[in-house]
Amino acid sequence: MKTFVRPAAVFAMAAWARDGAFPPDVMERLHRLVDVDPALTLTAFDGPDAAAALRDAEILITGWGCPRVDATVLHAAPRLRACVHAAGSVKELLDPVVFQRGLTVSSAAEANAVPVAEYTIAMLVLGAKDALTLARGYGSTGRLPNAPQSRGLLGATVGVVGASRVGRLVLARLQDFGVTRLLHDPTVTPEQAERLGAEAVDLDDLCRRSDLLTVHAPALPETRHLLDDRRLALLPPGAVLINTARGSLVDTDALVRHCAAGRLTAVLDVTDPEPLPPGHPLLRMPNVHVTPHIAGAQGREMRRLGDFATAEIGRLVRGQPLAGSVSADDLALIA
Amino acid sequence: MKTFVRPAAVFAMAAWARDGAFPPDVMERLHRLVDVDPALTLTAFDGPDAAAALRDAEILITGWGCPRVDATVLHAAPRLRACVHAAGSVKELLDPVVFQRGLTVSSAAEANAVPVAEYTIAMLVLGAKDALTLARGYGSTGRLPNAPQSRGLLGATVGVVGASRVGRLVLARLQDFGVTRLLHDPTVTPEQAERLGAEAVDLDDLCRRSDLLTVHAPALPETRHLLDDRRLALLPPGAVLINTARGSLVDTDALVRHCAAGRLTAVLDVTDPEPLPPGHPLLRMPNVHVTPHIAGAQGREMRRLGDFATAEIGRLVRGQPLAGSVSADDLALIA
Repeated sequence: MKTFVRPAAVFAMAAWARDGAFPPDVMERLHRLVDVDPALTLTAFDGPDAAAALRDAEILITGWGCPRVDATVLHAAPRLRACVHAAGSVKELLDPVVFQRGLTVSSAAEANAVPVAEYTIAMLVLGAKDALTLARGYGSTGRLPNAPQSRGLLGATVGVVGASRVGRLVLARLQDFGVTRLLHDPTVTPEQAERLGAEAVDLDDLCRRSDLLTVHAPALPETRHLLDDRRLALLPPGAVLINTARGSLVDTDALVRHCAAGRLTAVLDVTDPEPLPPGHPLLRMPNVHVTPHIAGAQGREMRRLGDFATAEIGRLVRGQPLAGSVSADDLALIA
Repeated sequence: MKTFVRPAAVFAMAAWARDGAFPPDVMERLHRLVDVDPALTLTAFDGPDAAAALRDAEILITGWGCPRVDATVLHAAPRLRACVHAAGSVKELLDPVVFQRGLTVSSAAEANAVPVAEYTIAMLVLGAKDALTLARGYGSTGRLPNAPQSRGLLGATVGVVGASRVGRLVLARLQDFGVTRLLHDPTVTPEQAERLGAEAVDLDDLCRRSDLLTVHAPALPETRHLLDDRRLALLPPGAVLINTARGSLVDTDALVRHCAAGRLTAVLDVTDPEPLPPGHPLLRMPNVHVTPHIAGAQGREMRRLGDFATAEIGRLVRGQPLAGSVSADDLALIA
């Protein structure tokens, strides 16, 4: 891998995303590595500012709010050698031409997985106790609710769908909670699952056995409605479904029916469609808890993304292997 | 310490508490240690069943729903040598005469601290993101709420009030979350706090600096309204207060004012009074989340209490030092 000598870099993301990911101390470290104008953050790739910045840029530092990087952008950026994404997935961001042109691509998905795993573990702990449902019931009736389903996480069976970065982190962190861990992932062998602390099972079996089920699979044509009406029906009564991945993995209409029947509790940080239209039934059920896609890095947490991207740029500049390298093949498999 | 030879034991707790703490495998281990009638669980100390059981009992295995153990009970149980509590605090359970009579007392407070710490960490993770408030707002309006306060736990300052068992566990677990840890506990030196990963500060300073504050102090006359109107006013706007300890530690009326003004978010697993009367203002605020005292061991988690109590009885029978020994002096300091 070639090394760079203090390459020219340009930010392409929303201003809030740059401010969050690159607070002053991170920005200072970045400045030691690259020549970047901290006052310029592209939110569009047309216009004179963009043209001038792209003409010189060797590294594009992307993030939330960056427009799609396609052939036109690459044409305007003849010296561009790398895209370093200070956020999660690059799937919607990068046209395959970026890889065809041989650019180095890195994403901070590994760093963004940490808060998603933390959120998931928190929801597993509270979901096992019906804490959110109880809090809402207590609040709406003003009375101490009965808590017949409050069972706690210890001794429960937790099904993890997808050994993605988040899925693996969740499995690792669950080690401390005294639960039985199941994993469904068609790309993972039983031996690999065992090393992750989990029993590899097929998805139907996972549904049948899980007291709590958390989805960490990528959104692909073949994973659309992975949890459909039939599989949701396999979950034991009182089971908790957590989705922090992508809304399309769950059949929304089927979920509405199972939650309306009181069979399932759902914690949804992502939905299909997203956001849900006003007055959607999922927003009206005491046993469904919808948050507006906040499990990933938020506010102060965003510095973890800038930390990762800056370290990655350091490796790039020194010609070292990247920690968050993304290939054209990965693009088809990531969330 | 004298050893016991398969002593006679009797359960004194609610049937649900015994069933939860002593599932079949734990009960089987207990049976190898003591002579106990699994079909008999005292919920009162009068009546012929109780009289017969107490006459022989050397160990009283207490738990939630056990009536107070006082001089009358001790009089009816002339052979009693130990009270092993398969639950948290023995403070309200045991009359000081139990210690005066020289009984060995053990509690499973250490085991009950684990789920409370887990619940607290979960609420810190979600509280830092305003997740509960957002979920409720999303649900009640059916619209994606603005999330200006969603800031994440990384880089936050967390104030822990009280280095109790739970407080220490919370501090230890926070090590993985990249937060600044403050501790207020008048019985802990700065060096001890540092070993717990925290900076020792006075309570006013802790309030001024904490983005999130969690209370783990005992309920004592001198800790009543420890967090009063003046100290709640020291918390920065948008701070999150978590109470899983005792309702009396917080001035409820002052908390109502600060939450109604939107200055604070509160997560209350305990309240004063408890339960709150129907229609209480705290039950009507979107930024106050009240759960019905479920942070401790619930359902499946209760086996941790029975596990601990059974291990403790094993140590008692073998004449080994206890892990959860409680002295008369402790009684004045525990929650």
